[in-house]
Amino acid sequence: MTNQINKQLRLIKRPQGMIADSDFSTTHETVDVLGADLTAQQVLVQHLFSGLDPGMRGWMDDMHDSYMPPVELDAVMLSTCISRVIASTHSQWQVGDLIWGLGAWQHYQVYDAEHLAMVTKLPDPAPIPLTAYLSVCGFTGLTAYAGMLEVGKPKDGECVLISGAAGAVGSVAGQLAKLKADCTTVGIAGSQEKCDWLVDTVGFDAVINYRETDDMQAAIKKACPNGVDIFFDNVGGDILDAALMNLNFEARALMCGTISNYNNEVADRAGPKNMWQLLVKNARIEGFTVAHYAAQWEQHRAQLSDWVANDQLVYAEQIVPGLENTLDSFRSLFNGTNTGRVVMQFAESV
Amino acid sequence: MTNQINKQLRLIKRPQGMIADSDFSTTHETVDVLGADLTAQQVLVQHLFSGLDPGMRGWMDDMHDSYMPPVELDAVMLSTCISRVIASTHSQWQVGDLIWGLGAWQHYQVYDAEHLAMVTKLPDPAPIPLTAYLSVCGFTGLTAYAGMLEVGKPKDGECVLISGAAGAVGSVAGQLAKLKADCTTVGIAGSQEKCDWLVDTVGFDAVINYRETDDMQAAIKKACPNGVDIFFDNVGGDILDAALMNLNFEARALMCGTISNYNNEVADRAGPKNMWQLLVKNARIEGFTVAHYAAQWEQHRAQLSDWVANDQLVYAEQIVPGLENTLDSFRSLFNGTNTGRVVMQFAESV
Repeated sequence: MTNQINKQLRLIKRPQGMIADSDFSTTHETVDVLGADLTAQQVLVQHLFSGLDPGMRGWMDDMHDSYMPPVELDAVMLSTCISRVIASTHSQWQVGDLIWGLGAWQHYQVYDAEHLAMVTKLPDPAPIPLTAYLSVCGFTGLTAYAGMLEVGKPKDGECVLISGAAGAVGSVAGQLAKLKADCTTVGIAGSQEKCDWLVDTVGFDAVINYRETDDMQAAIKKACPNGVDIFFDNVGGDILDAALMNLNFEARALMCGTISNYNNEVADRAGPKNMWQLLVKNARIEGFTVAHYAAQWEQHRAQLSDWVANDQLVYAEQIVPGLENTLDSFRSLFNGTNTGRVVMQFAESV
Repeated sequence: MTNQINKQLRLIKRPQGMIADSDFSTTHETVDVLGADLTAQQVLVQHLFSGLDPGMRGWMDDMHDSYMPPVELDAVMLSTCISRVIASTHSQWQVGDLIWGLGAWQHYQVYDAEHLAMVTKLPDPAPIPLTAYLSVCGFTGLTAYAGMLEVGKPKDGECVLISGAAGAVGSVAGQLAKLKADCTTVGIAGSQEKCDWLVDTVGFDAVINYRETDDMQAAIKKACPNGVDIFFDNVGGDILDAALMNLNFEARALMCGTISNYNNEVADRAGPKNMWQLLVKNARIEGFTVAHYAAQWEQHRAQLSDWVANDQLVYAEQIVPGLENTLDSFRSLFNGTNTGRVVMQFAESV
């Protein structure tokens, strides 16, 4: 029996604000797992893991001027996956090969030659856990690397403030600052548990629990008495405004996603009020996307992988089994309940 | 008769929004113009010209985190002046010397040694008109230089968009881009007359009259079909939002003052809505103040002065005689009626 059911999650409506179950439909297709349906230079992969990322919320909107074209309606939702080749007509790919690349929320998928040119073959056996390629050595780690080390460029003696610090990007970004320079790192997070983890396990110098703080501007001033040189912002909104008021001269505010806005409608997006601080501090807000640094991913990933293998980089993962739990898990990215990277595991054993 | 009346304009109330006559009072003091009242290492200057600058509106607010400490209540309003030494007890300053530096809205002023350390002696005779040291070779020209050439750094083939382009900063900034690189320059201004001047006299490649445009975003797209690489923003507000939507990858939006906000109360300052464009375009908004580049002023001024002397730099001045007309002239900076730098002349003959 070589036919299997390929279960899929398709985007059928543009979500308004937070995603709803009714924005998606579950479909089932039949796939010949021996690859009888492949044409030349294709592979059939079985997806093992999918990384869930707040930025994917933006892919669901009909915004054509974004860093990714929108996922089309009725298409299977896109997602970065770790996958195993289970059938191949491609000369450079063998059954058993491990692939890191843009996949989708479905169990099986055909990659053609054009798509295979954009994916990465992972070492097998891998020197680090496979899921790490979706977190600390995946887009979140690469995002932290690009933002902190290519854009922010921390220098000895600087103070680095990070919002969403307990997230998969923020927690790595803080560690990268310290691996590269003698910095003070201050994290902003939303629970005592996260704050404790950041200080005790990840190695941040100080933390601010924004849910326990009435006055973020004063809290940042207290935690960063000499001002903020790099603000690595995963959140935007009021926290950005409070951070702007604490910038040092020539400070860099890095805009790494704006989680607080992803679920708003575009017209409601209020900008920061304290932009004038950029003027008086000769400072800047710089946006970046990990895609812009694609040419350096291989080098960045190798460096991250070394640090992980040497236990110099702490990362947290939450592995959620089952495509049927994906929408709930995705929503959890926005309500502050998860710590670290959320990875969905397609099948129970891989 | 060596006593003269020193007429002064003092700030007596923090203005709400646009300045009102009642925010200021005129006072008269007696001054011995032969310097009988000087102590050691002082000079008495007679102010010849004062430059009127929109940024001075911010000095009138009680905002201590700005680039200048606020002017104290009941103090004579500060202003950059060209002045002549009429009495001196300072070993390095002679009667007749010309000074460029921070003065005030009054006819006479004593500069002590500490203040004299921060002013500049002008050549006498000067190679360019004296008023040029308050415009194209003064803070406005130095601001254009710092922003365009030190922060923006135009490169061959780039498109430079400038708001407030007919102003004293914007008109020079556009010319500097072309003097340094093979750029296309597009100016935004508020009247046909200004637009004509920018193209016919100043040498901009294209202009947008924002008063004749319903859709700034589309107008910028039409004028900059290949996108905007440098946006030199003298205005802020909706024009910034429209420009953000037209940024190229790695574009630089330079925040040079925010005229549209100077007269608002702080709490009303709405930030740009389209900040997310920084993210998707890997672009940045960078604030700057001319004060941050003080160490390079001498070099920048010499370069600007050479270009003026060689007729390579066009500038416009509007000389307004009389301290009694200063408040009206200052208000004119915000209603779009003036072209180029507004300079107040203290006395009829200098």
